[in-house]
Amino acid sequence: MQMENAKKGIPTDEILYISKKENVDLQNLLRKVASGRAVILKNLNHNIWPVGIGEGLRVKINVNIGTSLDHDFPDEEIEKFRRIESIADTVMDLSTSFNLKNVRNEIMKISKIPVGTVPIYEAGIKMLLENKAIVEMDEDMIFKTIEEHLKEGIDFITVHVGITKELVERMKDRRRTVGIVSRGGTFLASWMLYHNRENPLFKDFEYLLDIAREYDAVLSLGDALRPGGLPDSGDEFQMGELLNIARLVKLAREKNVQTMVEGPGHVPIDQIETQIKIEKILTDNAPFYVLGPLVMDIASGYDHINAAIGGAMAALFGADFLCYVTPAEHLALPNPDEVYQGALAMKIAAHAVNLTRFREEYEIDKRMSEARGKLDWTTQLNLSIDRENAIKIRKSRYPKEEKVCTMCGDLCAIKMLEKYLSA
Amino acid sequence: MQMENAKKGIPTDEILYISKKENVDLQNLLRKVASGRAVILKNLNHNIWPVGIGEGLRVKINVNIGTSLDHDFPDEEIEKFRRIESIADTVMDLSTSFNLKNVRNEIMKISKIPVGTVPIYEAGIKMLLENKAIVEMDEDMIFKTIEEHLKEGIDFITVHVGITKELVERMKDRRRTVGIVSRGGTFLASWMLYHNRENPLFKDFEYLLDIAREYDAVLSLGDALRPGGLPDSGDEFQMGELLNIARLVKLAREKNVQTMVEGPGHVPIDQIETQIKIEKILTDNAPFYVLGPLVMDIASGYDHINAAIGGAMAALFGADFLCYVTPAEHLALPNPDEVYQGALAMKIAAHAVNLTRFREEYEIDKRMSEARGKLDWTTQLNLSIDRENAIKIRKSRYPKEEKVCTMCGDLCAIKMLEKYLSA
Repeated sequence: MQMENAKKGIPTDEILYISKKENVDLQNLLRKVASGRAVILKNLNHNIWPVGIGEGLRVKINVNIGTSLDHDFPDEEIEKFRRIESIADTVMDLSTSFNLKNVRNEIMKISKIPVGTVPIYEAGIKMLLENKAIVEMDEDMIFKTIEEHLKEGIDFITVHVGITKELVERMKDRRRTVGIVSRGGTFLASWMLYHNRENPLFKDFEYLLDIAREYDAVLSLGDALRPGGLPDSGDEFQMGELLNIARLVKLAREKNVQTMVEGPGHVPIDQIETQIKIEKILTDNAPFYVLGPLVMDIASGYDHINAAIGGAMAALFGADFLCYVTPAEHLALPNPDEVYQGALAMKIAAHAVNLTRFREEYEIDKRMSEARGKLDWTTQLNLSIDRENAIKIRKSRYPKEEKVCTMCGDLCAIKMLEKYLSA
Repeated sequence: MQMENAKKGIPTDEILYISKKENVDLQNLLRKVASGRAVILKNLNHNIWPVGIGEGLRVKINVNIGTSLDHDFPDEEIEKFRRIESIADTVMDLSTSFNLKNVRNEIMKISKIPVGTVPIYEAGIKMLLENKAIVEMDEDMIFKTIEEHLKEGIDFITVHVGITKELVERMKDRRRTVGIVSRGGTFLASWMLYHNRENPLFKDFEYLLDIAREYDAVLSLGDALRPGGLPDSGDEFQMGELLNIARLVKLAREKNVQTMVEGPGHVPIDQIETQIKIEKILTDNAPFYVLGPLVMDIASGYDHINAAIGGAMAALFGADFLCYVTPAEHLALPNPDEVYQGALAMKIAAHAVNLTRFREEYEIDKRMSEARGKLDWTTQLNLSIDRENAIKIRKSRYPKEEKVCTMCGDLCAIKMLEKYLSA
């Protein structure tokens, strides 16, 4: 049990591994895990390399895959996973189709990185399989589905614990521009309105903690009320839910259950710093897992770039874990190539910040610059973030002289200066 | 003459036009132009819509096109221009080939946006045409070439006025990681080393001002010593040149010549704010025209995303004018599609900041979010930053029901919540 042991000052194998892998001080890492400022992703039932997320560790990125009712091809989801497994730090299977279990079983079989899910999706699909409405699910079934996921070894699960009946009822009179954009959050909001009862994940949070503790799984406290558009950013619904979540984070820490907090969403670029800081203050620095954020609403088709801008800034200001966004966001379920493009864009965002904090990351860029200064093309191509793509671009317009590139040809600045500096 | 008239409080037609187009206060704009904190791009000999750059105005983006010795196809450069003319605020023709004049003539004929050049490139090509070494160019020829460009109506030119003999000589013993990556700067640095003489653009800066004033052209004071890799960011060479430039900016203002300052380049993400602030302090808020900046060195193939991250942050902290970077940067001369991708990525960076400052920009995103909240797909596609591409993605995986998308299908959060909220 990571948190319990950390509180006693006992380093688990996972903490020893992460301290060594990230080359960070063991005692410091132990203190961060003990206080809940860092979490270790690894279910007791899952044989993977653990991943640490939070203060003092590298910013990590998550990639989502998963079928939908309208596009239900498990093989394609496995292909997506294969495209990103060497780029992503974690993967979430967000399948919401009748084949959802096939995808999860296969990913659990092949993944060496932590796997996350949103169990309420499966609870919803179970209802559809019984020809019932999603809102007809009962509370036991929700918790049972959560337990099934954790028993299988899922390392972290999104649980929308902070959306309450009061918040949802306020939405009746105070409509947001985009309402609720979280699927799981909507299942629960609809459930609360239909049954006129409190969110079971909020009401019975301690029961949820008991289940999570058994598998040492990390609870990712989902932001059902994240802004789905800039006009909703930082509104009373987002902040009301965050406040609820912050209170639950403290309870979880008392019970030795590791938690992360999920964050937006759509946020104007001049509000990102504030959004990160308020989460850190309210939760006493719980790891912050943000979706993007997206800094505009109109970039459909290019939301991976939109999210890379927001993600890099969020990470700079203290976000710990960045969920990727693909070019297909707001338009369609992404295909494998779009998944790859999204993963790479968010990897760039994370690396931008990691290189300012970790010597090992900076050294890669330094070696690249040294290779540039020496016109060493082999090293430049080898160090490129996507070597095959870099080679493809260079080869498609090969220069007359191999030392330079077609941008400047014989007018290469580096080549010319060297000649006169050494004269 | 923009600056002279602004100092007298007389609004020119161009200032009236920009005040109206950007919906900004006329008196404030006049004060900014009078003080040199904003500039108006429009050569007296060029029939275009003027563009304003600087404090209180929208962040603008520039797109570079141009042939190289190794890839000399003028038609392709015109095709690039056609791809970006509705996205870019300005275009620079950076051609460096024997066909360079054909490209410039054609762009000047068809462009309705301001055109910039780097005249020293043509000075270099003239030498090659005479079978001479570039360093053999004489001072008169440099100034003559500059005057030719301005006479033709070029609206702004990059002049590397801040790189001095002293700075270049220091480089002999204090090698940078990537040396000089500016082509024009290298021509001049090599020239100084070869002739053992001072940079004529620095030495005879007042003569340069006389030429620029005649056409009311904007001098873009080029950063020959911009960092070409993260290890060189903010080093004594970059800062030494910036200090020289800052002093020349003040001289130009006294002589009623409008100037912008060019900036980096490769900058670690945690240094961007400092880099912008020091430029603004030293130059008393001269418009800052940055190349990216790139926040890492290893993103070859994806440098448009790298630059969008740096550009958005730079704009947020006060940069006024963002030069795009394409996915082919560091690898090859970009093709038309890469030029388009680069332009769009930088447009996204600029819009991210503009929407936080200008109601009209924000309204576009707000309308998009309202359309999302109503599942109004026609409006969503129409408002997308690249409508054709958005339609292509959506059409390629069309949902079973037209109200939703394949991401969630029937589990659409917005659709479901609406049902229970209105129940």
